[in-house]
Formats: sequence, C-alpha cells, structure tokens
Amino acid sequence: MKILLIGASGTVGRAVVDELNQEGHHEIIRAGRTSGDVQVDLTSEESVTALFAKTGNVDASVATTGNLFFGPLTEMTTQNFSVGLQDKLLGQVRLALIGQHALNAGGSITLTSGIVGQEPIAQGVNATTVNAALEGFVKAAACELAKGQRINIVSPTLLAESKAAYGPFFPGFESVPAARVALAYRRSIEGVQTGRVYTVGY
Amino acid sequence: MKILLIGASGTVGRAVVDELNQEGHHEIIRAGRTSGDVQVDLTSEESVTALFAKTGNVDASVATTGNLFFGPLTEMTTQNFSVGLQDKLLGQVRLALIGQHALNAGGSITLTSGIVGQEPIAQGVNATTVNAALEGFVKAAACELAKGQRINIVSPTLLAESKAAYGPFFPGFESVPAARVALAYRRSIEGVQTGRVYTVGY
Repeated sequence: MKILLIGASGTVGRAVVDELNQEGHHEIIRAGRTSGDVQVDLTSEESVTALFAKTGNVDASVATTGNLFFGPLTEMTTQNFSVGLQDKLLGQVRLALIGQHALNAGGSITLTSGIVGQEPIAQGVNATTVNAALEGFVKAAACELAKGQRINIVSPTLLAESKAAYGPFFPGFESVPAARVALAYRRSIEGVQTGRVYTVGY
Repeated sequence: MKILLIGASGTVGRAVVDELNQEGHHEIIRAGRTSGDVQVDLTSEESVTALFAKTGNVDASVATTGNLFFGPLTEMTTQNFSVGLQDKLLGQVRLALIGQHALNAGGSITLTSGIVGQEPIAQGVNATTVNAALEGFVKAAACELAKGQRINIVSPTLLAESKAAYGPFFPGFESVPAARVALAYRRSIEGVQTGRVYTVGY
C-alpha cells in the first residue's frame, strides 16, 4: 500500500513507521511541518491541497499530529480554546475532507484523538472537547464515505515515552509504549473496519 | 433564580420559558440575536461580554441556540465545516467561558447538543462532530468550574414540532414535544448534578 503519514517524526509517527515497515511491503510517504519526505501544514488549505498534488492518490492517509491548548478553565479565553479547534480538530478534519478525493477505493483515513477525550484531566477542557469532536467526526464520516473508503481513529492513553514530561497531569493513568499504540494504526490501515475508535491502554 | 436564556424565541427556548414560569418564582431574561429582552450574538466576543455587563450576575445561563452545516461529506469543504465550529460549538463554549465569571456560586450553565451527536444521520457529519464536542466540553468543564458552579447539556431527539421539516432526515427516530425536552433544562437548572448529558427521547 501507498501510505501517507503526517506527523511522521513524532513519537507515535516513528513507531507507526517502524510497525508498518516490519514486512517491507508498504510505500510510506513521511510528512511533517518541517521534516520528512514532504512538508505540510494541516492548518492551511493550500498546503494540504498541495500535499496531495505532490503525492497523488494513496491507499491510506494517517495523521498523528495536532496541537491543543492546556490551561485552567477559570482563566481560559475563547482565543485559547480556538487553538485546539483550528489546529488538531480542523487540521485532521481538513486532511479527511480534502484527502477523501485522493484516496483509492477501499482506502483508509486514520486520525488520532487521545484518552482525555473520554477521561477529563486538570487543565484539559480543550483536549477533551477536541478529541471528543474528532471521535464524533469519524463515527459520522464512516457512514458517508464513498468507494468503500474507511475512516477510524486511534485514542491512546499516556505514552510511556511522554511519562517524564506529562505524567503529573495523568495521576493513576496507565501508560503504554508507542510501539503498542502503533499496532492500532496498523489495524486501521490493513483491517476492514470503519467508524471505529481504537482505544489503546484503557 | 435569575435565569438568562439565549435562544428564547426558538421552539425549545419558548418551551423552557413556559416550564420555568409554571411556578412563577424565577426571573427570566430572554435573549436572542434579534428578539427578546436583550440581544446577543454568541459568535461575537464583544457581544457576549456586553450581554453580561447588561444582565449582571445570574444564577443560570442557558443556551438553546446554534447553527450547524448540513450537507454530504463527499462535497463538504473546510469552510462548510467551520460553520458549526464557529457558531454552535464556539458560540456555546464562549457563553460558558465568559459566563462563568458572571455566574453566582452554585449557579449553572446549561448547553444544548442533539441526538445526532451520538447517532449519525445522512449529511450530518458537522452536527455529530459539534454535538460530540459540546458534550465533551461539558464533561471536562464540570471538573474544573469554581464556586460550586455546575454545567450540563441537553441532547434531545428530533422535536415533534420539527417533524414536518426535518423528519425525512431522521428515518425511524422517535420525536418528542419541546415541552418534554424543557423538563431536562429544569432538571439542570434546579437540580444538583454536574457534567451530565441529559438525553431526551432516546
């Protein structure tokens, strides 16, 4: 399969590349804001359109990227809140909306949410909202995609690799290595299901 | 209680006013884009700030309003999708973020989603996303509000009053009269729970 992976240089992205490369039968196009085989900014309509003009049709589009706002609700402004809406939410939605037209029949789109979408944490209101929105998007979009195209989303718990940095925000949460999270992307890409939220580690 | 109701002239809004007025012990401020006691545009930061400057502190803020985009996923653009994000989603979030500072201790915020947040329908991808986002927002915000403030959301099925106009989009869905939906708002405003999604009719 020809697989486009956006966020390929991140912790999850690298693990997905490793997982998909195990049997050597995929062509993987690594994309990132500043690194990778091709560059793309998911917050820009022109940039995403240009991305698919470069790649041509693919069998899978995967996003493992997106920024959120973290901060206390009692001090949060609409502008703060818009960070996650414009970046992680609309960025991944844009990839799906534009990408559906460059996706082969039976191809898949795989997005990324996170455990905070279902389990709120302190200062995580924007994250819960955006991740819940992405999961809603995927469940609805799966009902309408054409040509047997599929769409799923992976929702991991805290990454073991991020525990030192973010552990204090996730008291009592289990963590999982990115390599285990990567399996869910493979299930989405090589499997047959659609509209699924693949939770990992919870 | 002093209750601010935004969307007071709509089908649900009018039913909420009727329900809350039954015992005559509430002061209700009716707000709308162009009608009511005060005017407000939830898509405008200045307008919402000005609203609370006019009303002063309240015991409850309620929103029964917000626009969404309906259309086939295969033709949907990012711009189409942004309609619901900027209007229903960010509008109701803005009301909560600004309104928390004009809410008395123990006061409540009540937002509105809809059954499509959990049950996708044709052409409803934007609606599912936005309603799921609002439900996520409420669950997370309930964990962080100060001074015993509460926040809930009402998710009704198709209104009986809207069946003639929207029934064909909801094949096999039950409908409920707005008067029954209004009870959920009263439960949120006069009750004790927080972080709840009150589903009505499903």
